[in-house]
Amino acid sequence: MTEIEELIKQFAHIPGFGKSSARRAVLYLMKKREKVMKPLIDSMEKVLETINPCPICGNLDSQTPCHICSDQKRDSSVICVVKDIADLWALERSACFNGKYHVLNGVLSPIDGIGPEELGVPALIKRLKASPVKEIIMALPTSIEGQTTLHYISSTLKNNGIDVKVSSLARGIPFGGELDYMDDGTISLAIKERL
Amino acid sequence: MTEIEELIKQFAHIPGFGKSSARRAVLYLMKKREKVMKPLIDSMEKVLETINPCPICGNLDSQTPCHICSDQKRDSSVICVVKDIADLWALERSACFNGKYHVLNGVLSPIDGIGPEELGVPALIKRLKASPVKEIIMALPTSIEGQTTLHYISSTLKNNGIDVKVSSLARGIPFGGELDYMDDGTISLAIKERL
Repeated sequence: MTEIEELIKQFAHIPGFGKSSARRAVLYLMKKREKVMKPLIDSMEKVLETINPCPICGNLDSQTPCHICSDQKRDSSVICVVKDIADLWALERSACFNGKYHVLNGVLSPIDGIGPEELGVPALIKRLKASPVKEIIMALPTSIEGQTTLHYISSTLKNNGIDVKVSSLARGIPFGGELDYMDDGTISLAIKERL
Repeated sequence: MTEIEELIKQFAHIPGFGKSSARRAVLYLMKKREKVMKPLIDSMEKVLETINPCPICGNLDSQTPCHICSDQKRDSSVICVVKDIADLWALERSACFNGKYHVLNGVLSPIDGIGPEELGVPALIKRLKASPVKEIIMALPTSIEGQTTLHYISSTLKNNGIDVKVSSLARGIPFGGELDYMDDGTISLAIKERL
């Protein structure tokens, strides 16, 4: 049983998996070895071979620079700063942003030892000095850490003499959201920043 | 993005995964390529190479016959019939059964086209004819399909002249279960079959 148990252990490391769901997944894979397990291995190997972080924005892609950075049709004068690639994907799915990105390595979190260096802020400053932009959209989380990161980056930009418009995502009631189900913080924000 | 999207699609096929959780998993793997993704691929390949269904009981194992069938210390006179390997694993984890197993391919489900042949009932009959046992424990689900399968197997055994004690798992309130949280069916069963 050791090979199976080893694979279950590996699966349990993936976020969203616990011991039981990992067992179920492994059993499913073993039952569908030709149709699911082999293609999955091939796919993973392909990703491992071809995908690398973009040296400009930090996105993961098979081309270098990534397909967003090398897209001539996108507006290079606006950079959207996101905390990770999942957020970049979410913005790309909405298809409402046509500028470039800068992917941070999370948000400032002194407890976890994540400071400005780990975050990739110096790389952002260097990038902006080399090719100035008109606007930076801070698409960072509304958590305390996210907002601290936002303020840290804004002041670092100023200290480095980078004069650029810094905006952040609008906050309020989500599309189709029922007031009844909203938390107090969101409602008070929506009232305070009413249009 | 195509390689990444392909891998996300593959992951979304695994039970327990949706599109969003598959995205999260793939992102995690790409971030931890050395520590998680490579070992995961290696593990999957090892399982693919070494694991095969046991020709006797249907369990999946790296040895043939499986480690349970070839274990001389286990009682060969009792066979526990389970609907799949997940249930065999659950029984093994409880470490309360020391006999052999027979793994069915699910339960009878005419709508899904699963009849006795697909289930592996003929293989069970053949096995019992070749080496008779004292008792068969039917560890099948309490669902209608499970109970139909139980009765089908019992009558098939009789029709084939196999005289064996057929038992099934006790039903009632689970260990530590609160009456308050039990469904009506379980409570009425527990009353009816009270000890």
